[in-house]
Amino acid sequence: MADNSAQPGETGISKKALKKQQKEAEKAAKKMERKQQREDAQASEEAAKEDISAGLYGQMKLIQSSEKPQRKMHNIGSLDASNVGENIWLRARLHNSRATGKQCFMVLRQKHFTLQALLFVNENVSSQMVKFGKHVNKEALIDVYGQVMAVPEKIEGCTQKDVELHLRQVWVIHPSEPTLPLQIEDAARQVSEKDGLSTVNQDTRLDNRILDLRTPTNQAIFRVEAGVCKLFRDILTEKGFVEIHAPKIISAASEGGANFFTVAYFKRSAYLAQSPQLYKQMAIAADFDKVFTVGPVFRAEDSNTHRHLTEFVGLDLEMAFNYHYHEVVQTIGDLFVQMFKGLKKHYQEEIDAVHRQYPAEDFKFIEPSLVLNFSEGVQMLREAGVEMDDEDDLSTPNEKLLGRLVREKYDTDFYILDKFPLAIRPFYTMPDPNDPKWGNSYDMFMRGEEILSGAQRIHDPKFLSERAEHHGVDLEKIRAYIDSFRYGCPPHAGGGIGMERVVMLYLGLDNIRKTSMFPRDPKRLTP
Amino acid sequence: MADNSAQPGETGISKKALKKQQKEAEKAAKKMERKQQREDAQASEEAAKEDISAGLYGQMKLIQSSEKPQRKMHNIGSLDASNVGENIWLRARLHNSRATGKQCFMVLRQKHFTLQALLFVNENVSSQMVKFGKHVNKEALIDVYGQVMAVPEKIEGCTQKDVELHLRQVWVIHPSEPTLPLQIEDAARQVSEKDGLSTVNQDTRLDNRILDLRTPTNQAIFRVEAGVCKLFRDILTEKGFVEIHAPKIISAASEGGANFFTVAYFKRSAYLAQSPQLYKQMAIAADFDKVFTVGPVFRAEDSNTHRHLTEFVGLDLEMAFNYHYHEVVQTIGDLFVQMFKGLKKHYQEEIDAVHRQYPAEDFKFIEPSLVLNFSEGVQMLREAGVEMDDEDDLSTPNEKLLGRLVREKYDTDFYILDKFPLAIRPFYTMPDPNDPKWGNSYDMFMRGEEILSGAQRIHDPKFLSERAEHHGVDLEKIRAYIDSFRYGCPPHAGGGIGMERVVMLYLGLDNIRKTSMFPRDPKRLTP
Repeated sequence: MADNSAQPGETGISKKALKKQQKEAEKAAKKMERKQQREDAQASEEAAKEDISAGLYGQMKLIQSSEKPQRKMHNIGSLDASNVGENIWLRARLHNSRATGKQCFMVLRQKHFTLQALLFVNENVSSQMVKFGKHVNKEALIDVYGQVMAVPEKIEGCTQKDVELHLRQVWVIHPSEPTLPLQIEDAARQVSEKDGLSTVNQDTRLDNRILDLRTPTNQAIFRVEAGVCKLFRDILTEKGFVEIHAPKIISAASEGGANFFTVAYFKRSAYLAQSPQLYKQMAIAADFDKVFTVGPVFRAEDSNTHRHLTEFVGLDLEMAFNYHYHEVVQTIGDLFVQMFKGLKKHYQEEIDAVHRQYPAEDFKFIEPSLVLNFSEGVQMLREAGVEMDDEDDLSTPNEKLLGRLVREKYDTDFYILDKFPLAIRPFYTMPDPNDPKWGNSYDMFMRGEEILSGAQRIHDPKFLSERAEHHGVDLEKIRAYIDSFRYGCPPHAGGGIGMERVVMLYLGLDNIRKTSMFPRDPKRLTP
Repeated sequence: MADNSAQPGETGISKKALKKQQKEAEKAAKKMERKQQREDAQASEEAAKEDISAGLYGQMKLIQSSEKPQRKMHNIGSLDASNVGENIWLRARLHNSRATGKQCFMVLRQKHFTLQALLFVNENVSSQMVKFGKHVNKEALIDVYGQVMAVPEKIEGCTQKDVELHLRQVWVIHPSEPTLPLQIEDAARQVSEKDGLSTVNQDTRLDNRILDLRTPTNQAIFRVEAGVCKLFRDILTEKGFVEIHAPKIISAASEGGANFFTVAYFKRSAYLAQSPQLYKQMAIAADFDKVFTVGPVFRAEDSNTHRHLTEFVGLDLEMAFNYHYHEVVQTIGDLFVQMFKGLKKHYQEEIDAVHRQYPAEDFKFIEPSLVLNFSEGVQMLREAGVEMDDEDDLSTPNEKLLGRLVREKYDTDFYILDKFPLAIRPFYTMPDPNDPKWGNSYDMFMRGEEILSGAQRIHDPKFLSERAEHHGVDLEKIRAYIDSFRYGCPPHAGGGIGMERVVMLYLGLDNIRKTSMFPRDPKRLTP
């Protein structure tokens, strides 16, 4: 954009000043000309020199599957001193590069592994090739060939500390644009370390999620998340559960409430399921006995908090029992214990990677899981000075405070709160047989935040109708639900777990958007 | 309802006829009176008799978790001659009962296992108890206690053929209504066997899915389905894939086409994802290298066929490769081979159960998987008399015919058709490097029906834009998709598998509604 104040004649600028400007412009033009001459001379000199590396570097044409070279590609993560002397190929991103005169230091990255590579003019490498290497953009994918070399001192900046690669071939497989909307190093930086260095705010991260996800922390978080799902399924399958799939498009907002998304379904309206509960219960009525399902759950709640999403992954289970819903509570308690053990056993490296950027205490749990009654929880809170009635629900701050009190007293970050007040639970909750003030109903907590809500469900159609009417639920709208129990149904209980919450709280993270790969909230629908 | 023609005085009935009617009425009344007297006598006689089984049978009060009896409950499926003489408890449904005089034969059912039970008047069992047993409705859940007895002849009607249970206690845990909308035995009957016996049509089954799902066949189908998902995940995890979760609510109908469902998202419109493809590809661009995801896929197609659903479960995978997309084709081919082997190894009992009701030939496959070029397939069809052009897509009948031809020639029900004509594939398909008439694009088939569609995707933003424009796709609408490839992306390929189709075709079933627990089609949104 032109700077109007610099237009002579139109502004009140003096002749003297104008002359000075002209002189400066001439000087700059001459300087540019000299620079250009120098560069031209250098370029023709280089062009004149035979390029001993010709055919060993460059931009490769788009890989369209035209050939199948028999080439072993190495993994950075497995390179160590035992590979010294080997000539190897590998494909990696250019994480970073630093050029000094006739050499170029590169950091190559694969997932969360990094390796130092060195490109310098020598009997195998031309200055043209080094120049090419200096100009490769960060994040470009390159295929490199070179020799693994021992290093005199450990390389602190890379995961592979004992070796570096001396490059002989450099091929850009797929380029990256020169300007990145965020720097991977900034996105990977520990907040308390920043000391003036850039970090990246959450919206910038999420707007550019494909770059943000390349950080070692994110590579680790989503591997832990895959682990949570795998452990959930494997442990339950081992316990005799069967996986089912519940439909997400449903004809009636059967669970009541207003927080349903509406879908245009051909010429009518439908809804997105707020939970798979009805379908899990139908599977129980249909003799599947113990079932689980993993899938999206939709909540049209305008909640902009650190722990709410409008779409999240539900880890749901439901189980017929013989005589007492504690059979189910025990099963779920053991599920969590096995899951925590499995994470520690199989994902410690990833957990450590996350804690390097986001420090947190290791997650503590005891076996068997601690079960407290709601009234005991209230008592602990009262002793800590909280004023609340017996049947008040736990506020978020009280939930967190109770988590801290429980941790102090019982040394566990996971516990189960049983026998919630019936009045604050959904209509289908089975009342306590001895005192209808309470329900056969429980929540489970990690680091003081709820990650599972569950109950024994009323499995008798008549009693269920009574309780629905008592709650002012329109019986016509839940007819199909009630009818599911008319042809014999075993007593059963279950619960729904928020996957992203489990991962967030297990790792001690502060926002659920860190554990949803592509989060959805009232304000975010992209990417 | 009164029969008007019998009202004397108002109709032309004769006096003689009237007298005869009166006499008959008196006779009937006397007969009724005598019957009533007999029954009263019998009842008072029974009431007078001490009920030696009092407290050993009845309707139990609703299980509300009031006690935790230490009672071992047995599984019917594990009962055999080794249990003879044991007194055991078990919970089962009353599958069927037949009363003759002072005894009552019952068939007890747990999932697909059945056991004969006998309730008869003896020194431990009162006639009152037998009478109670006779009146329990089918499908009620009962807790029974009794002695396992050997039988002189194998019981053909039950899965447990060598033993029966002589009952001493019978408790109805949860009743069923006296009239069932469908009979489990009818729903379980093989169609060709019916010979005048009832079977149940599909809509009746689906309308009463909780009863329909109780058949041995459905118990088996959905266990096989759980097995397909488990094998898909386990095999890919073993191959180094990471599970991800893709959002289902998306901001733009990015893949084009009109078959999207629209969702009201707070104050704006959103869509249900037609596939997780964009997100799988973003995970690849974000260095996850090999990913899979299992979740619902939504298609607003008004297709009422045996193989279309508006919501189905997608088994999706995407994989970066080094130089040739056949690295991915081979991986997927091997995935299917391992899956078929796993099903045979772990689910043979379930497969047999399904085939008892719906006979089908065993599924055949070869290792490694057969890969044919599309043009070879066209050639085979032409040799069989089909007239088609090189670049015509396969019609459904031609697809099936080709499946039969391939089976005859190569003895496999699974094969891969590679190098589809580029013109009939989506814009993001990578063209063949040697002849742009073809694409690096493939379908996979089971018993002559498509179960996977996939391709090498164009990973370069400029080339992708060109191809989109060539297809008349609005670049603005797919901006986010194209932008995903601006910061370096490895070449990659993948595919999406329809879970319900795999189960349907593996088992040789004729309708996809048989393999969706709660199917959704343009006409069905319930249950």
